[in-house]
Amino acid sequence: MSLAFDIGATDGAARTGVIRTPRGDIRTPAFMPLGTAGSVKAMLPESVRETGADIILGNTYHLMLRPGAERVARLGGLHKFMHWERPILTDSGGYQVMSLSDLRKITEEGVTFRSHIDGSEHFLSPERAMEIQRLLGSDIQMVLDECPAYPAAEGDIEKSLSLSMRWAKRSKAAFGGQPGRACFGIVQGGTFAHLRRRSAEDLLAIGFDGYAVGGLAVGESQDAMFDTLAATTPHMPQDRPRYLMGVGKPDDIAGAVLRGIDMFDCVLPTRSGRNGQAFTRQGALNLRNARFAEDPEPLDARCRCPACTHYSRAYLHHVVKAGEIIAAMLLTWHNLTYYQDLMADLRAAIAAGRTAAVAAGIAAAYARETAGN
Amino acid sequence: MSLAFDIGATDGAARTGVIRTPRGDIRTPAFMPLGTAGSVKAMLPESVRETGADIILGNTYHLMLRPGAERVARLGGLHKFMHWERPILTDSGGYQVMSLSDLRKITEEGVTFRSHIDGSEHFLSPERAMEIQRLLGSDIQMVLDECPAYPAAEGDIEKSLSLSMRWAKRSKAAFGGQPGRACFGIVQGGTFAHLRRRSAEDLLAIGFDGYAVGGLAVGESQDAMFDTLAATTPHMPQDRPRYLMGVGKPDDIAGAVLRGIDMFDCVLPTRSGRNGQAFTRQGALNLRNARFAEDPEPLDARCRCPACTHYSRAYLHHVVKAGEIIAAMLLTWHNLTYYQDLMADLRAAIAAGRTAAVAAGIAAAYARETAGN
Repeated sequence: MSLAFDIGATDGAARTGVIRTPRGDIRTPAFMPLGTAGSVKAMLPESVRETGADIILGNTYHLMLRPGAERVARLGGLHKFMHWERPILTDSGGYQVMSLSDLRKITEEGVTFRSHIDGSEHFLSPERAMEIQRLLGSDIQMVLDECPAYPAAEGDIEKSLSLSMRWAKRSKAAFGGQPGRACFGIVQGGTFAHLRRRSAEDLLAIGFDGYAVGGLAVGESQDAMFDTLAATTPHMPQDRPRYLMGVGKPDDIAGAVLRGIDMFDCVLPTRSGRNGQAFTRQGALNLRNARFAEDPEPLDARCRCPACTHYSRAYLHHVVKAGEIIAAMLLTWHNLTYYQDLMADLRAAIAAGRTAAVAAGIAAAYARETAGN
Repeated sequence: MSLAFDIGATDGAARTGVIRTPRGDIRTPAFMPLGTAGSVKAMLPESVRETGADIILGNTYHLMLRPGAERVARLGGLHKFMHWERPILTDSGGYQVMSLSDLRKITEEGVTFRSHIDGSEHFLSPERAMEIQRLLGSDIQMVLDECPAYPAAEGDIEKSLSLSMRWAKRSKAAFGGQPGRACFGIVQGGTFAHLRRRSAEDLLAIGFDGYAVGGLAVGESQDAMFDTLAATTPHMPQDRPRYLMGVGKPDDIAGAVLRGIDMFDCVLPTRSGRNGQAFTRQGALNLRNARFAEDPEPLDARCRCPACTHYSRAYLHHVVKAGEIIAAMLLTWHNLTYYQDLMADLRAAIAAGRTAAVAAGIAAAYARETAGN
């Protein structure tokens, strides 16, 4: 396998370890901030690293449309382009094609769509998705899959899954051999345990460096997501990283770690930060709320980020209300710090054999957070 | 006088020195970035300091409306509120009342206006303007003056000037004694040399810690501005700081320094940065321009800022086009660095007796910049 994955400790299904890449280690369970269009929004890369991130995610869909994969390659690759020398995982673009683009047409060969930016027509196939990721210089490249809408009938999920598995095979072949880089397959199958199992087995037969779970957190309940994970991860290789795509809220992550997931990405900390929302250990705060207008306390007295060490809630309320860019900068920094500290807590909990208790604590805190908003 | 002003060297009318305040020294000629509403837009205060800024400017008009001066005072003052412990100069609010607010009514007592934010009615008098600045904890407080529209007839300028001089007297009385803090008068009089002289003499009779020149860069030609300065600064005390309000472009600043000005503020570097414009030693660049799409060079190879040390013009073009917040962050940082380096060059030129040559070089470069855009 291209990347070594050293599991340091397990606690039930949960595991903590290190994925070793030529660009640096990734401590797992890991949270990957979104660097969608060549920037973790409102953050300098040095600050992203300060939060504790070992790896970020880039979006193939956004980057292929602007500035274009060939252009990024000519400029020396995505790492140099965006000044982030540590690992980058790129998705395949499939999910955004389904959710963001116009006029999609899916065939066996691939998907034709129009850019949401300028209406131009583009084609994405498994081969092209892998070529783009190679051009970007991605360290962990994802196969192209089809993402069915939720809810969907079992028959539709099965049909979509079959296409995704054929695309996975073509993606792997197109990935070829890229020393020091990895290719991950994506388990699909909706909330149907037998389809998830079949998908995992199909991917295992192809052989990947890591395995993702796709198609969750698309509208199903948290219980359904956890049940699906519990029915899926036992069929994914123990010795390879497992990545739950697009998840999630703090309690989603804690529950998924309990069920054997190693990697996560989610828009929540960055997008919430730009919307005046802060995750804290005492509850989620909406900084727009007038109750913070004269609150001299920090956002979270236990947090190490600049928003918490240098500013009051009253200041953050003011800059959110005034639409100052520093509001997005400070709250994004805080939320990413919160997420990285959450992952550090989970890693420590696994090593200490206390994962279930810590995960329950996270879920309880998040329930308080939600109620407090 | 409250603040010591040590002039280290002169070169013709130009001077370089240090204004000493309890919150730190201000090297002159100085450029003050705008911290309008409690934030230098798109910058953390630590980064503002890294550019070389010794002092920033806060806007009374914006802060009185939101979050409110009394609230800032209850939260410990503006320095603590916005995490900038070095000197802050605040304007009086007069200029913004004229340019931003609705339904202004000016009487001898003061000006009544409606907030541009929520339409609420407010009253600003010389006494209230000084009270607000005291509540904010401003280190250098400006008198309230009336800012006539440009162009205006001599008679109107004279009438407005007379009101401003009566308000200056009331402002000074309201300022009272605030150890370690300064109060500056503002010379008005349009482009009429005899009115400027009368205004300067009136203010000198009242007695201020420093003297500003207001009502310039409002639409008159650069020649007219320079002529007015040349006719005004000789009537301003040699031993007190002189501040040209709201100016300006690099060549405006260089020409004003030649004519004896010590302090400047301008929205240009910060606003331009948010609009994709960069000042460089080789010319002003509009990063939206497609010619930068694959330009691997830095913005300015001689610049020390993060935008220039870590990124290509191609990257900056991309993030500007994509509307990424990092574009505003990096270009603001760059432009403020450019302005601070410009001031450092001017200070060094004065000390070396080369001010005229350096100022001419700045003007020539800026003419190239303008032509290149």
